[in-house]
Amino acid sequence: MDDLERRLRDSFARQTMMQTLGATMVTAGLGRVVIAAPVASHVLQQQGAAHAALAFGLGDSAAGYAALSVLPQGSEVVTVEMKINLLAPAVGDRLVAEGRVVRPGRRIVVVGAEVWAESGEVRKHVATLLGTMVPVEG
Amino acid sequence: MDDLERRLRDSFARQTMMQTLGATMVTAGLGRVVIAAPVASHVLQQQGAAHAALAFGLGDSAAGYAALSVLPQGSEVVTVEMKINLLAPAVGDRLVAEGRVVRPGRRIVVVGAEVWAESGEVRKHVATLLGTMVPVEG
Amino acid sequence: MDDLERRLRDSFARQTMMQTLGATMVTAGLGRVVIAAPVASHVLQQQGAAHAALAFGLGDSAAGYAALSVLPQGSEVVTVEMKINLLAPAVGDRLVAEGRVVRPGRRIVVVGAEVWAESGEVRKHVATLLGTMVPVEG
Amino acid sequence: MDDLERRLRDSFARQTMMQTLGATMVTAGLGRVVIAAPVASHVLQQQGAAHAALAFGLGDSAAGYAALSVLPQGSEVVTVEMKINLLAPAVGDRLVAEGRVVRPGRRIVVVGAEVWAESGEVRKHVATLLGTMVPVEG
Repeated sequence: MDDLERRLRDSFARQTMMQTLGATMVTAGLGRVVIAAPVASHVLQQQGAAHAALAFGLGDSAAGYAALSVLPQGSEVVTVEMKINLLAPAVGDRLVAEGRVVRPGRRIVVVGAEVWAESGEVRKHVATLLGTMVPVEG
Repeated sequence: MDDLERRLRDSFARQTMMQTLGATMVTAGLGRVVIAAPVASHVLQQQGAAHAALAFGLGDSAAGYAALSVLPQGSEVVTVEMKINLLAPAVGDRLVAEGRVVRPGRRIVVVGAEVWAESGEVRKHVATLLGTMVPVEG
Repeated sequence: MDDLERRLRDSFARQTMMQTLGATMVTAGLGRVVIAAPVASHVLQQQGAAHAALAFGLGDSAAGYAALSVLPQGSEVVTVEMKINLLAPAVGDRLVAEGRVVRPGRRIVVVGAEVWAESGEVRKHVATLLGTMVPVEG
Repeated sequence: MDDLERRLRDSFARQTMMQTLGATMVTAGLGRVVIAAPVASHVLQQQGAAHAALAFGLGDSAAGYAALSVLPQGSEVVTVEMKINLLAPAVGDRLVAEGRVVRPGRRIVVVGAEVWAESGEVRKHVATLLGTMVPVEG
């Protein structure tokens, strides 16, 4: 595990919300971070699909860590704004969110994330996110 | 408790994500729904504030139930898209999300929500949401 | 006309896009700016209503000048992101956009705008905007 | 020119806003539409870059026609909501907006657009849009 990956994983481990959602960090690389969580019985909405907050939470964290990965060591980021478009019901075995940097910057980092619902071998695009992160003092 | 309130509270009780986040439905009226949750140790981000997914989840559900309250009995709604602007760190005793209908419609309901962090008597505006709900078969 | 109003009107006069859209600055006060334009024959979409870019342009400028009004003299602002929800067809005599500051800040100013279509005495809410402005060197 | 392209170009020709902005439809294909306009002296903001309404207008129309291209003949679409993130100042010879369908649907079409500023051979990514279109009676 290199320094960048360790830095991202250490920070992720401090996000208690991620543990609450059952999330794990699958990939932690430069400008690209993947976070996944099962569609478990404790994260649903009233019709039995995953609540929008699950896709949002995974996508926001994946995008935030993608932003963090392109910033100098010791940085922290916060979400300024995030928009999610939900494309299909989030049903399946698990959700996988892939965060990316759309445009890096010293003051503003524009980020995106795609969220997939996986059921066995089948993968469906269930959400897309577009947002803004800003670096803050760590 | 009138029929509308019962309908909203029954649906809310089936959102297991809300229980996971520790959320309760404070108010359930026509076009206005309030949902609150403590800033508890299991819903934080890495810097110790509430994760953006908490403000999002409470705001999205409050807005969704505000939409549902103006639709015919037997309706369900799903979030098509939701944008959240985070205004200040979500620190305090609890978050309170107030959802409202910006514009009702048969095919599209535009909704908003404001999220406040409360600490004792003090109340701070921490997030604002603007989004789109669509009715679906119940 | 006070200094603030003069500063906002001078800047507005340099936005050639506003002249192209037929826009005028109706009100220019602290944290609240109103810009209006006729629904003229040169700003339409294919069905005869005003193009979404008209409501967006008026709303974005009104919100931007509302942000500028709360910043120190000599500042400039740029739009980082802006979301518009269109609530009804923009038909009528003219569109009136009212911009406001949702949350001021040194690095980030969160802004909103409401857009109305006016026909004689009747006024209809046709769009709502929510976005982020950042100060830049003037 | 095939039927689809003719249908899109006929509709585009009725958008007087596009003529006002100096826009032309470069490509009109299934699920992908390109619209361009010069960064001319009549579409600027106060600092001399293209106004955000230009990138928005081109992107929104390109995304809308991409949506229309995947709908049955005789359909029309309207923008329900659109978010734009501005990535860099829109300076250069012209802006080129490429609209695409993120997810087609009978009731909801999720769309995106990327906007580039071109100066000679150089091309810079200046904006990204994500939004929702709905079919309406033509």
